[in-house]
Amino acid sequence: MKQTLPTLRWHGDVEGYLVLLDQTRLPEEIVQLECREVQDVWQAIKRLAVRGAPAIGCAAAYGVCLSLRELFHSRTSMHCTEHSGNKSPSTGLRPPRHDAAMEAVTEACDHLATSRPTAVNLFWALNRMRETAKRSVTADPRDLAKRLLAEACAIHDEDRQMCDAIGRHGADALAVLPTGSGILTHCNAGALATGGEGTALAVIVELSRRGRQPHVWIDETRPLLQGARLTAWELQQRDIDATLICDSMASQVMSEGRVKVVVTGADRIAANGDAANKIGTHGLAIVARHFQIPFYVAAPTSTIDLAVESGDEIPIEIRRAEEVTHGFGRVTAPSDMKVYNPAFDVTPAVLIAGIITEHGIIKPNKSSITETVTERPSHVRSI
Amino acid sequence: MKQTLPTLRWHGDVEGYLVLLDQTRLPEEIVQLECREVQDVWQAIKRLAVRGAPAIGCAAAYGVCLSLRELFHSRTSMHCTEHSGNKSPSTGLRPPRHDAAMEAVTEACDHLATSRPTAVNLFWALNRMRETAKRSVTADPRDLAKRLLAEACAIHDEDRQMCDAIGRHGADALAVLPTGSGILTHCNAGALATGGEGTALAVIVELSRRGRQPHVWIDETRPLLQGARLTAWELQQRDIDATLICDSMASQVMSEGRVKVVVTGADRIAANGDAANKIGTHGLAIVARHFQIPFYVAAPTSTIDLAVESGDEIPIEIRRAEEVTHGFGRVTAPSDMKVYNPAFDVTPAVLIAGIITEHGIIKPNKSSITETVTERPSHVRSI
Repeated sequence: MKQTLPTLRWHGDVEGYLVLLDQTRLPEEIVQLECREVQDVWQAIKRLAVRGAPAIGCAAAYGVCLSLRELFHSRTSMHCTEHSGNKSPSTGLRPPRHDAAMEAVTEACDHLATSRPTAVNLFWALNRMRETAKRSVTADPRDLAKRLLAEACAIHDEDRQMCDAIGRHGADALAVLPTGSGILTHCNAGALATGGEGTALAVIVELSRRGRQPHVWIDETRPLLQGARLTAWELQQRDIDATLICDSMASQVMSEGRVKVVVTGADRIAANGDAANKIGTHGLAIVARHFQIPFYVAAPTSTIDLAVESGDEIPIEIRRAEEVTHGFGRVTAPSDMKVYNPAFDVTPAVLIAGIITEHGIIKPNKSSITETVTERPSHVRSI
Repeated sequence: MKQTLPTLRWHGDVEGYLVLLDQTRLPEEIVQLECREVQDVWQAIKRLAVRGAPAIGCAAAYGVCLSLRELFHSRTSMHCTEHSGNKSPSTGLRPPRHDAAMEAVTEACDHLATSRPTAVNLFWALNRMRETAKRSVTADPRDLAKRLLAEACAIHDEDRQMCDAIGRHGADALAVLPTGSGILTHCNAGALATGGEGTALAVIVELSRRGRQPHVWIDETRPLLQGARLTAWELQQRDIDATLICDSMASQVMSEGRVKVVVTGADRIAANGDAANKIGTHGLAIVARHFQIPFYVAAPTSTIDLAVESGDEIPIEIRRAEEVTHGFGRVTAPSDMKVYNPAFDVTPAVLIAGIITEHGIIKPNKSSITETVTERPSHVRSI
């Protein structure tokens, strides 16, 4: 494997900053974004410089750490504020230093939560950061910052371990496939989408590590081409054999018998096993079923939202028409054309062979899901 | 309906030329191509400036008419050639004027036939031009040119009538749908693909004329975006309500209950009813079947190739990787990425509700197809 830049990393100590690989510039340019303010992270999530539910969660957690920088970087001015006539609206008293820090953290969490509406990991990570702040009874913003950074690093580290576990369980499940089998994937559920090796791609990377020589068919994934730009790049970096196709070609490749299994990620999974993922996943699952090709979803249990009974309740983000009509530097449709651009769709549980989680393969039905999530307490219940 | 430029038209008399609307420039620019030599037409077909099986047939027929221009435009030099030492290789005699003309026509037909491998109408139209030339016992190239131009105009005119008939039969068949129903189409099977109002789009245009207010869902149709660039533009020109989607969004729109029927064109139909059409059509038909939405193919009987027993025998054109990786003015995949780019796929007859032809709706099975094609002699048998 070639040496690759990490999707996201914290640089320095509590006074450091978040460095993101700008995914909007891939594969043409390798650009690293230095996020030194909360707003930089918000922007990066909003404009998809960092994307993929788990990576968004990690980035947002680090983003919260940036909320205190101003407090200890402008200690003088903070003192000024504390002793000025700027009163706390609730008590009428001058806010103590701890309140100012808590306020900054809360404000950062509230703001970052508005960056992307569908990714459940975002809210989950921000909630962990809020809880950490609440538990920290300290008057020193630098001390609070240390605890927040430790929590963000823990979230990141757990994510890495989660990816590894998904990779192992998925590779175990697909061990029955002949060496060199074709695996089709959609969008990007890889290292660029997580803090580790990914979800769907972690399975492929692990199969490759085990010498099973998977051949990956990559849907380009319109409109934003995450498959062509990101998954293709990631697999090249890892020397894994892959072929790029347009989304509409998946059925042709399947009809030629070249795909043995489909594995995608998921953005949110309902209690009944319905899975929201990048637009096109549902159609792919239907086509796979037609050709009797098993369709797996690889996702951490943090993606399961027990509060959502079925996929019908999952809100679908509708994005700008320009993503379809002005995709990549060229106008490809009449300028005032009406466009429908849903970013996600929901694959019904009945089309899913299994959900590859960090705890193993779960059947996509309410009892299996509830049992796994209830018996193996994980961060998901803390939402 | 706004006044629109025709897809193709002959300008002037036998000394005239072919004018094509350059479809590679739509929708951003309206550029008319003047084809004054056979090679101009070959180039236009090759680089998809004119595309769609029936339109390619018409353009090629007019292209053959250009083969004689040189003979009567450089009459002096032709006389020189005739009386020079330039001998006919077969007879050893100087070629008579008629032979030179026939040779030019044959050469043009042979050359134009190499421009696009899949479109059966191309070979059919060129064959009609060859037969016309053979039947014309005349020593005057100008007289032969008149007969060829008359034949090309006849092919074009029959195509117009064929489109109108398909439109009427299709609209009759879809009369059961409520007013305002959603119709999904893929690629461009409209006026830009034919000499008339199209095939699939002729049905939609006729429904619109009858006040049935169809709402059209247009697949953008990667990689060349004929849906976004051409179908969207055509329907706008005709004031027909339409929404553009990415190919991967069709299943979402269907799952929302917004599509009542799917209608696409076809490039070649086998004797058993299997239909080759733009890549993505097969997947669309599978998804439509999943949602119990009827899937129709609209195509003239000239598209039916009785010599081909089933879709397995239809050759699939594989096109350049750059169409996928460099499609939008920007590089959208790693530069040395492996790509699979089949231009067509074959939808099995079992997924097709009916074939809308100029003679009415045919069931996609061997007996119905053979009966229609045999009982109603049309140009298709002359291939």
